[in-house]
Amino acid sequence: MSEIQTFLAAHRDRFMGELFEFLRIPSVSARSEHDSDTRRSAEWLADRLRDAGLSAEIMETPKHPVVLGEWKEAGPDAPTLLIYGHYDVQPPEPLEEWTSPPFEPEIRDGRIYARGSADDKGQLFMHVKALEAHLNIHGTLPLNVVVVAEGEEEIGSPNLVPFVEQFRDRLAADVVVISDSGMFDEGLPALLFSLRGLAYCEIHVTAARSDLHSGAYGGAVPNPGMALARMLATLHDAHGRIAIDGFYDDVLAWDEETREAIRDLPFDEEKFLAGVGAPALSGEEGFSTLERLWIRPTCEVNGLLSGYTGEGAKTVLPARAMAKVSFRLVPDQKPGRVAELLRTHLEKVAPEGVRVQVVELHGGEPWRANPSGPLFEAASTALEEAFGTKPVLMGEGGSIPIVGDFEKVLGAPVLLVGFSLPGCNMHAPDEWLTVDNFQTGIASLTRLYEELAESLSG
Amino acid sequence: MSEIQTFLAAHRDRFMGELFEFLRIPSVSARSEHDSDTRRSAEWLADRLRDAGLSAEIMETPKHPVVLGEWKEAGPDAPTLLIYGHYDVQPPEPLEEWTSPPFEPEIRDGRIYARGSADDKGQLFMHVKALEAHLNIHGTLPLNVVVVAEGEEEIGSPNLVPFVEQFRDRLAADVVVISDSGMFDEGLPALLFSLRGLAYCEIHVTAARSDLHSGAYGGAVPNPGMALARMLATLHDAHGRIAIDGFYDDVLAWDEETREAIRDLPFDEEKFLAGVGAPALSGEEGFSTLERLWIRPTCEVNGLLSGYTGEGAKTVLPARAMAKVSFRLVPDQKPGRVAELLRTHLEKVAPEGVRVQVVELHGGEPWRANPSGPLFEAASTALEEAFGTKPVLMGEGGSIPIVGDFEKVLGAPVLLVGFSLPGCNMHAPDEWLTVDNFQTGIASLTRLYEELAESLSG
Repeated sequence: MSEIQTFLAAHRDRFMGELFEFLRIPSVSARSEHDSDTRRSAEWLADRLRDAGLSAEIMETPKHPVVLGEWKEAGPDAPTLLIYGHYDVQPPEPLEEWTSPPFEPEIRDGRIYARGSADDKGQLFMHVKALEAHLNIHGTLPLNVVVVAEGEEEIGSPNLVPFVEQFRDRLAADVVVISDSGMFDEGLPALLFSLRGLAYCEIHVTAARSDLHSGAYGGAVPNPGMALARMLATLHDAHGRIAIDGFYDDVLAWDEETREAIRDLPFDEEKFLAGVGAPALSGEEGFSTLERLWIRPTCEVNGLLSGYTGEGAKTVLPARAMAKVSFRLVPDQKPGRVAELLRTHLEKVAPEGVRVQVVELHGGEPWRANPSGPLFEAASTALEEAFGTKPVLMGEGGSIPIVGDFEKVLGAPVLLVGFSLPGCNMHAPDEWLTVDNFQTGIASLTRLYEELAESLSG
Repeated sequence: MSEIQTFLAAHRDRFMGELFEFLRIPSVSARSEHDSDTRRSAEWLADRLRDAGLSAEIMETPKHPVVLGEWKEAGPDAPTLLIYGHYDVQPPEPLEEWTSPPFEPEIRDGRIYARGSADDKGQLFMHVKALEAHLNIHGTLPLNVVVVAEGEEEIGSPNLVPFVEQFRDRLAADVVVISDSGMFDEGLPALLFSLRGLAYCEIHVTAARSDLHSGAYGGAVPNPGMALARMLATLHDAHGRIAIDGFYDDVLAWDEETREAIRDLPFDEEKFLAGVGAPALSGEEGFSTLERLWIRPTCEVNGLLSGYTGEGAKTVLPARAMAKVSFRLVPDQKPGRVAELLRTHLEKVAPEGVRVQVVELHGGEPWRANPSGPLFEAASTALEEAFGTKPVLMGEGGSIPIVGDFEKVLGAPVLLVGFSLPGCNMHAPDEWLTVDNFQTGIASLTRLYEELAESLSG
């Protein structure tokens, strides 16, 4: 066994116990009733960074704090690595679909089930433990390290860019590493070449002043629920394309080489469909499933609410209806412009007699990388050594809006190295991370720090 | 003052106090957690019938009991009146839109605000008090009386027809009076010539096994929320007509005389719109607002639910979506057939990759009367005497499914004489009944019993 493996084996139970503590804190950033939990999560993380051997500060923002960890003892001439992650989690609902409660972590069949196990507490914590392991084994790190852990990723990171801009000197780094994504498959690690952006809106449709009796008023008073459905139905055409004027204006066509590389990946569509459990897949005509997921934009209903939704038959004509609608964006789409196009479109198609309001909840820009060069090589080497397989290049359908911002503000390239697996239920009930990837991931990260140091110093 | 007015004035506070007691019991029949309240409501009502001088029994059904009140002392040769009403109420949600809590009745500006004040506890209770007043003043009633008060009207009266059939001899009557409808306007009483029927369904759309991350899966996995919206949008055409094949096959065209009579009513469309508070009215082209409400069928969304509907932005691709959709029916449409047509339609228009299930929650047949003859004349006289104005004939957009069943099973004509006012928020927050109509209504009912007795004995 290598030194790192010996160390991990010796501290395995303690690491897992600590991870469980972290996962037990319901740091749901979107819910104000969890604000104190979110803060507790930040404080807990800062304590663990200090235990690992870094200094740590809770940095206030207008909402949830940033945890800033630092280790600068490699000296002013050594390169600096910035590790970014987030300690906040998605809301756990619907609770009844969890096999075990979302904030009571449980290991079943080699998987750690809990909200945040994969996204992103588990992966952020792997960095904390990799830093601790390296410092314990070697008494030092091969480069300076800054850890930025925010508590607002799941609500669109409203305060992170101002934070990074304010502290740009203190956060100056040569490379940024983020572990908030996944591997291509079990045993097959991956490096990311693209992320989709996001424009997330709420649509509010109103008509009557209050809910009315659907018998006494039905047929003559506009129904916001029906009006909303009619409006949502205009968002796609019959070919699965988004039917909003100008929506595709800023969509870059990907080169044939990238599309070819995507087609060459060992993607098992039947297994994917079986994992999803739907009767069939669907989407934009003319694109494969992985293309639909990685390099094409989407328009999805994330939530619908109108009228009476409880048990039984309430004959109500609703006064209002609400839809949460979000778009995944690809280069060079801009969230603000997409929200504006949606607003214009809905004004055009709104049925008579209803009011329509579009609220932009949050947005993030899409990102693509040039997947080559010494840093990519360094990451590839570290992953190959730990997992025994060369990583593949893949896109990611989700959004990590801060990636592009780090590149812009700090001028440092970003490496996306993640350890969750397909089907890990991020943002859904029964979220999980495998115990194996937690262990092997920590080992690969200690190796990654060394490879990056070597590459940047060379 | 007449004897009845003197009696009502003397007992005004007690009657109002008792009504408040009745309204305070949250007899929400659709909610199993209120089952004990619903039963308590039945027992309370039976006690008040006994106080009034009738005998009363709680008659069990498979769900909520029927309260059966009887006074047969007019003798076997005297005619019998059956009074029907319901002691259950609609769910009160959304609670935050009530000015005062739904089950804490409060008088403001001459209106009694509470769930059930108009629909139908308040109106049912007026009969109880009219019987009590008549018995107190005259020591007798001019005809035999049977009171049938059910606790399942708001969930479609699933057990009432079997009950009426089982006890058809005990319930045998010459006329049925129901007070569960409204007047045309303040000071202008009405008799009803039609009721719309109802077919109430739930549509369930499912795709993936559980909620998924809208970034990781969006674009390739069917979205039940979007699919539901697309299906709902196909239910009407651009002219406000219901676009389900065969839907209008059984719709009778009304005669020009009835349409003319509807057009001649003193209907103030601007006042109606102002009361509703919507930007505009809308509906089926070629029909007036009252025609749309009374003699044309509808298709309405009563509820929508999918995905995440709480605070903030949850990027979820929902596993399921639900719509409550109901149809108001006109003669000779049948609820079962309409539900079947909906099912066939949705199967035809369902997008690829989703499962669609249609559950028929409940139905009721539409009804129309021949608004003439001695019983109508008797009711007209009673209302004119009490309110000082001859009642108008009107339709009713809502449904009272039992009306047609009483006619069929008991062979007795049904008179619909109601005392709520337009805008009384039946099935909505801030439901109300005026104190004046509560008082004058009781007086008119005592008169009605006498007029009906005279007409039936004559």
